[in-house]
Amino acid sequence: MIRTHDAGSLRATDAGSTVTLAGWVARRRDHGGVIFVDLRDASGVVQVVFREGMDSAHALRNEFCVRVTGEVTRRPEGNDNPELPTGQIEVTASELVVLSEAAPLPLPVDDQVEAGDDIRLRYRYLDLRRSGPAKAMRLRSRANQIARKVLHERDFLEIETPTLTRSTPEGARDFLVPVRLQPGSWYALPQSPQLFKQLLMVGGMERYYQIARCYRDEDFRADRQPEFTQLDIEMSFVTEDDVIGLGEEIVTALWSELAGHDIPRPIPRITWHDAMARYGSDKPDLRYGVELTELTDYLRGTEFRVFASAIDAGGYVGAVVMPGGAGQSRKELDGWQDWAKARGARGLAYVVLDATSGEARGPVAKNLSAAHLAGLADAVGAKPGDAVFFAASTNTREAQELLGAARVEIAKRAGLVDESAWAFCWVVDAPMFERTDEGGWTAVHHPFTSPNADWVDRFEEAPDRALAYAYDIVCNGNEIGGGSVRIHRGDVQKRVFDLLGITPEEAQDKFGFLLDAFKYGPPPHGGIAFGWDRVCMLLAGADSIREVIAFPKTRGGYDPLTGAPTPITAQQRTEAGIDAKPKPAAVPHTGTAGPAAPVADPV
Amino acid sequence: MIRTHDAGSLRATDAGSTVTLAGWVARRRDHGGVIFVDLRDASGVVQVVFREGMDSAHALRNEFCVRVTGEVTRRPEGNDNPELPTGQIEVTASELVVLSEAAPLPLPVDDQVEAGDDIRLRYRYLDLRRSGPAKAMRLRSRANQIARKVLHERDFLEIETPTLTRSTPEGARDFLVPVRLQPGSWYALPQSPQLFKQLLMVGGMERYYQIARCYRDEDFRADRQPEFTQLDIEMSFVTEDDVIGLGEEIVTALWSELAGHDIPRPIPRITWHDAMARYGSDKPDLRYGVELTELTDYLRGTEFRVFASAIDAGGYVGAVVMPGGAGQSRKELDGWQDWAKARGARGLAYVVLDATSGEARGPVAKNLSAAHLAGLADAVGAKPGDAVFFAASTNTREAQELLGAARVEIAKRAGLVDESAWAFCWVVDAPMFERTDEGGWTAVHHPFTSPNADWVDRFEEAPDRALAYAYDIVCNGNEIGGGSVRIHRGDVQKRVFDLLGITPEEAQDKFGFLLDAFKYGPPPHGGIAFGWDRVCMLLAGADSIREVIAFPKTRGGYDPLTGAPTPITAQQRTEAGIDAKPKPAAVPHTGTAGPAAPVADPV
Repeated sequence: MIRTHDAGSLRATDAGSTVTLAGWVARRRDHGGVIFVDLRDASGVVQVVFREGMDSAHALRNEFCVRVTGEVTRRPEGNDNPELPTGQIEVTASELVVLSEAAPLPLPVDDQVEAGDDIRLRYRYLDLRRSGPAKAMRLRSRANQIARKVLHERDFLEIETPTLTRSTPEGARDFLVPVRLQPGSWYALPQSPQLFKQLLMVGGMERYYQIARCYRDEDFRADRQPEFTQLDIEMSFVTEDDVIGLGEEIVTALWSELAGHDIPRPIPRITWHDAMARYGSDKPDLRYGVELTELTDYLRGTEFRVFASAIDAGGYVGAVVMPGGAGQSRKELDGWQDWAKARGARGLAYVVLDATSGEARGPVAKNLSAAHLAGLADAVGAKPGDAVFFAASTNTREAQELLGAARVEIAKRAGLVDESAWAFCWVVDAPMFERTDEGGWTAVHHPFTSPNADWVDRFEEAPDRALAYAYDIVCNGNEIGGGSVRIHRGDVQKRVFDLLGITPEEAQDKFGFLLDAFKYGPPPHGGIAFGWDRVCMLLAGADSIREVIAFPKTRGGYDPLTGAPTPITAQQRTEAGIDAKPKPAAVPHTGTAGPAAPVADPV
Repeated sequence: MIRTHDAGSLRATDAGSTVTLAGWVARRRDHGGVIFVDLRDASGVVQVVFREGMDSAHALRNEFCVRVTGEVTRRPEGNDNPELPTGQIEVTASELVVLSEAAPLPLPVDDQVEAGDDIRLRYRYLDLRRSGPAKAMRLRSRANQIARKVLHERDFLEIETPTLTRSTPEGARDFLVPVRLQPGSWYALPQSPQLFKQLLMVGGMERYYQIARCYRDEDFRADRQPEFTQLDIEMSFVTEDDVIGLGEEIVTALWSELAGHDIPRPIPRITWHDAMARYGSDKPDLRYGVELTELTDYLRGTEFRVFASAIDAGGYVGAVVMPGGAGQSRKELDGWQDWAKARGARGLAYVVLDATSGEARGPVAKNLSAAHLAGLADAVGAKPGDAVFFAASTNTREAQELLGAARVEIAKRAGLVDESAWAFCWVVDAPMFERTDEGGWTAVHHPFTSPNADWVDRFEEAPDRALAYAYDIVCNGNEIGGGSVRIHRGDVQKRVFDLLGITPEEAQDKFGFLLDAFKYGPPPHGGIAFGWDRVCMLLAGADSIREVIAFPKTRGGYDPLTGAPTPITAQQRTEAGIDAKPKPAAVPHTGTAGPAAPVADPV
């Protein structure tokens, strides 16, 4: 090492020693004869003093990289800086070497300066010198270590799975990769290691994990990246409880060490249906109450057409209360209509309860009967001064989700969110199936998800009510992980395919090599995947996963630093075989056609 | 867990306990009334006995997945199996549940059976149930853990770098990825994180590592994979010795724990020129001697045209001795000519020394003068009964490499390789530059590799002799890692580009965003990358890196399990934007054009 000490490690007890430091000029104050420099390295900052004779220090500018030799000295009486771990001392320089200079900075290396994302990412190497981004990188490295410790202590094997794999005919989200050596043939980048981890279970590996890079070529919803990372886990001979227990061990260790928060265990479990009914969300934020109330029965018989038509069609009417919401201005109340419309709803019906009289007013009030109005506050748990928002639909889930979104918005607008709180839950007993637009059934999770014990022998009787051994873990309203127990019985798998309208031929074509593997004594198995970027984001207290990724891309998958993606040259095109017609395969591969990653734990 | 114990963990002290096990039927012996089953799980094997009344066991076949409940009992006197950790006991079954059945096996799960690679990889999930492949997976997981421990103890951060990055115009080996959201634009998969790790150093991360997936779309030389893994490391404020020291810590820990071998330290260092001169290789196998001897001076003045023309042209003549090689048959000696021709040489000149008289015979002998013949044995260190192989060329390196290859072949044929030995060395002081076919210079390592202290101020004087701070670590003739100290001074970088004939404009175009970063106080830094597949292969005692990869591909990048790569549909082609013309960039990215991974530590 070209230094003897880390700058941030020096203390009063080092006074008198001669040290050599290396790092960056964080700040320079030129007091004529004396120059003070805050010298920063990865360990922290120390003040270096250049006195007379050290004239070369005049040339120093911010972010010059330097090596300094000098003596550690106690700061003069009264000059201690209690906010700095090194604040009792300074280093009186006797030698200075400029290792490299810095041009004027496009992005100040200063925690106080708020720069735009595009500039930050373009000059990410400067951004990372700031304490916040650097801390996020350290936190993420530590998170990996903590999770691995939990897993290795439990005999998990870290196994790498391929990322150049088979393309799915349906895989509209697969990134494709032309193969020079087999012109006309393409790999796909996997959306997850799902299929390979299941094959590892068939291979008797029993306990697998991987911090795995995954790929999805899709419109980037808020805060998605084309490549992302999941902590991917699969276990054999387990029940749902085993996977959930392991998941709790991991999050408990992470939050304890990195957020100083002891998660009470067991983490509460809520069924998917309860979560929808009470919170209008399959990832409820439990840092606050504001639960939904179903009013379908209460309002039965109403003449208000919007509610009546939903009720008569076997649908749902419900409400959510905004504490103190009656105090909103007309403009604020209108704002809710715009908010609802932006979400694709027609509007958001509401009544406000007079703060004194409790009288219900507002557009809906005049459409409800006196009896319905009289009992409303009790029915929904509202008090005078509150507002009550309604949703009604023939599609229960749609109405619940609108109310669930309103609930989140209410908490935000009414200041109900304790930003220092952590609220975890498991959402369990997810539905197996949902209707397709064509009237058939589709798998909610993926077609290898096992029905639970109640439904395994009779899910055909009521596919819309059949439940799966599928579970998500939710933190403060963010889904941070999810998984399921998989089907390992051929007869059950066949019945699921039958219900989904997948013929044996189609199944073979789509899922061939996994089904082939399942002919040879597959063990019962299940797993989970954590959205690792999101886990680290929450632990870092960041607003975006970009903050915990070393070199993230902006929306649309653009990298301001490298300029990727770019056009390619005609020569690259030719060499990569992009326009080659595929030759008939020399080694025909029969009976195992199918996607590389048809399915994934949903994070 | 659906079992109470691991099968392989049961011991005599468990006798009397009732246990539930789950695993696979490894072997079944039906003795009429009594059926013995070897039950295998990840922990090992135990014998299960099904006595009368347990008739369902008759249906068991190899690789059925089962759950068994029974009592642990001492084996009857004389029936212990000392080769099995569980050999003192057996489990007398009282309950049997078949979890899943197995069809007749295309690949026997049997360590004794040698199956072809194509079958093994196609049914990799069965192959992995065999103890050898399973052990290789466990070893690799453990190797990751050991390396990470060394690195975390030394404050390294594990940081993920992008794999969807910028394509190099020259990057004939880059895999390309079309980007749906920016039709006509492509990412490239990186050949290594080289560039990003250097950017992390500019970003002040100081100590980075990653077990990184890398990609290379090229002809697969013996035992290459299109995706491979390297343990990638970069450090700031270091000298070559620091990186070498860290490398030694890592290999020492790995070999100690996984191969039971304590590597003597310091690991010997040999200069690149010495390695070429003595072993004819930049990755010498030091498990045996058989060093090369240069004869250029000794044979000066010879009339043998082949040698004389090399010597006169300032080239090289050298020899390597095969102990006992005079005993080879004419056919064996002819075989060496075929061997040399297969390597692209014109042949391999030799003399054999009569075992009794020591007289030199063979095709070369009659071309050499009596004086040259008389002193030859002494000059090359040969004894009566040995053979001496010669190489001569105007290109010293070419001749040395031929002799180096002959040396390896000699060791093999003469049985000189101690297969149980481990011989490590560092090859240091690699040349900076080599001649291009066009008469210019090219960087041997990459253009960011730093000249060493002797040459940094004057490499232009003799580019062919200039040496770099570049180092490779070699184990038993395999290069397992390599790296360099990088250039961090702008003036040195400019002089290197000048020598390489790279104009400032070209440099900006090719390496723009790295050069941009280097304007802002880059620290001195250096690093290393280990070829992780090869490291694990050696530790596992395997012949191929495929043995330590969960789902490897065969040559040509074909995956017998999934059938990847495959043709894609017209719809996939359209959706992925493969044939779209690139639009002019909405956000033009000026001045940072350049490759994502122009350079890499060479493993």
